[in-house]
Amino acid sequence: MNFKVKNDTFLRALLRQPTEYTPLWMMRQAGRYLPEYRATRRTAGSFLGLCKNPDFATEVTLQPLDRFPLDAAILFSDILTVPDAMGLGLYFAEGEGPKFERPIVTEADVKALHVPDIGTDLKYVTDAVSQIRKALDGRVPLIGFSGSPWTLACYMVEGGGSDDYAKVKTMMYKNPKMMHSILEVTAQTVTAYLNAQIEAGAQAVMIFDSWGGALSHSAFHEFSLAYTQRIVEGLIKEKDGVRIPSIVFTKGGGLWIESIANSGCDAVGLDWTMDIGVARQKVGNKVALQGNLDPTVLFATPDVIRNEVEKVLSSYGYGSGHVFNLGHGISQHTDPENAAALVQAVHELSKKYH
Amino acid sequence: MNFKVKNDTFLRALLRQPTEYTPLWMMRQAGRYLPEYRATRRTAGSFLGLCKNPDFATEVTLQPLDRFPLDAAILFSDILTVPDAMGLGLYFAEGEGPKFERPIVTEADVKALHVPDIGTDLKYVTDAVSQIRKALDGRVPLIGFSGSPWTLACYMVEGGGSDDYAKVKTMMYKNPKMMHSILEVTAQTVTAYLNAQIEAGAQAVMIFDSWGGALSHSAFHEFSLAYTQRIVEGLIKEKDGVRIPSIVFTKGGGLWIESIANSGCDAVGLDWTMDIGVARQKVGNKVALQGNLDPTVLFATPDVIRNEVEKVLSSYGYGSGHVFNLGHGISQHTDPENAAALVQAVHELSKKYH
Repeated sequence: MNFKVKNDTFLRALLRQPTEYTPLWMMRQAGRYLPEYRATRRTAGSFLGLCKNPDFATEVTLQPLDRFPLDAAILFSDILTVPDAMGLGLYFAEGEGPKFERPIVTEADVKALHVPDIGTDLKYVTDAVSQIRKALDGRVPLIGFSGSPWTLACYMVEGGGSDDYAKVKTMMYKNPKMMHSILEVTAQTVTAYLNAQIEAGAQAVMIFDSWGGALSHSAFHEFSLAYTQRIVEGLIKEKDGVRIPSIVFTKGGGLWIESIANSGCDAVGLDWTMDIGVARQKVGNKVALQGNLDPTVLFATPDVIRNEVEKVLSSYGYGSGHVFNLGHGISQHTDPENAAALVQAVHELSKKYH
Repeated sequence: MNFKVKNDTFLRALLRQPTEYTPLWMMRQAGRYLPEYRATRRTAGSFLGLCKNPDFATEVTLQPLDRFPLDAAILFSDILTVPDAMGLGLYFAEGEGPKFERPIVTEADVKALHVPDIGTDLKYVTDAVSQIRKALDGRVPLIGFSGSPWTLACYMVEGGGSDDYAKVKTMMYKNPKMMHSILEVTAQTVTAYLNAQIEAGAQAVMIFDSWGGALSHSAFHEFSLAYTQRIVEGLIKEKDGVRIPSIVFTKGGGLWIESIANSGCDAVGLDWTMDIGVARQKVGNKVALQGNLDPTVLFATPDVIRNEVEKVLSSYGYGSGHVFNLGHGISQHTDPENAAALVQAVHELSKKYH
């Protein structure tokens, strides 16, 4: 394996080391907005068919990098591979999003939960990581990822997506012990899973707490951040003498940015609602920041995109510690030309801040 | 009309005057969780049938007050009566939520927008206000309300509800002038509408910015708060020698609480994500705060509800300026007994803080 990364701007920014420009990648950069992705997905037959086959996963992971000069690759996978490996039976009903055959309803369901054997049950993921890392051949770093225990538990208890999280929040309020048991096993699993990705070649890891923002202040700290923090503490910090930075992204988590920054992570991901300059004032000396353009800006024109990119860059201001990203995944309805305009704008306009 | 309010605790709390306990009401307190509401709705035939008939609107507005000792009544209506009166043609497709026959798509659609004649086109609302006020006979104050221009514009451009606000945000980024024109006419309409409600008897008014939280920091200030502020400035401040307080509620607006508090309103409504004690530290001397229990707490048991109520009360702390509420509308799946437990807990537990 090639240990040298030709473009390590992303890793340096995460560690708040000097860079020549602001690196960027886009959440969901390998996705349906790219015609080449849609073609591979057709060949694979399904979304899970892409995730579970390391050849396909490698192919789609590299597609956006072949099109745009992005500064990082992210493993193509899905956060729900984890509860699937924990025995819940993930499937995708056409046009309905992810579902579980065996959602967690009773105490017996919780007791039956187990930390899966990552090397067996999630081998297809670690195989994909190794294969992508090899295929990248040091072009840019590879990011591994997982959902946070709270976010995974939302799906595990709701049995799929939800608008109001009524089931999982009712369990949390009515039976906090049961909720904590689920989160405990899930946190152990996620820690092992991310460490397996690091062993397989991931050079940075990101924890997606997509539904942390649905919680109250105190519930967020008790049921989401406490477990994220435990994972961060259990991560492999260095591999082959190179630091492995961690990023924690809580959608809707701006109000709690100080506590998130104190979780031990190297960088905090921001959605688009918080001014990144305000965020930097609050936590700038502790962590790097990743974000935070509203993805709907990409529905506008290259001129508007450039203007909005400049707003984010100037709000962050001078110096390192900023990884540019969208505040949420890129929409499937985005014109790839506008994604190209974004990448160009970030690279060009950010030089003056370094 | 009876100008004396027997229980004016709510009004005093909004003005940060001393009270004996923390007053409360619940967003969507007249709603589907109440069997008596469902019965009236069946008689009326439809949701709009309730809104447009002052007798029915009066009946359902008073139902929760007959059941629970709440400290305020809120006009039963819908925020979308405003775009309907502006000519968009509101209808409810069964099981699909609100829709508009003529959403705003082109510049010509924007040009065709007009400030409706409130006294004619929205007479059914002001009639309902007068009738409710008379029926209340001074029991508790009556709250009038409207959606914020941004929130109304979301529906007007999307043509109904939306998950990602792609249409309205694309318009905002691509054609900000067009967006501002819509917001301008809507703000004029909302100002006239709220003032007509005050003239008809509303003793406090609330502006619901339900979708302000979907915006970036700068877009929120430019496209949402600027128009809310203009409305607040244009409101009748006093009627018959009595101050008419205003409340601004931005769902997901915790990050911007200081700017919202500077809009000129008397109180800021909070969803459940922000710690109300932190909110008070940020703005406590400027405005009252209304909120902010997670409505899913009401799916738990009376003991849990009591415990969570105490958390909110103790986080706010000693003194006046707090109106207890949920952080969002009460769910239709709530057991009315649990709503009763909430009301009792707030009244009992809050005494020690006054």
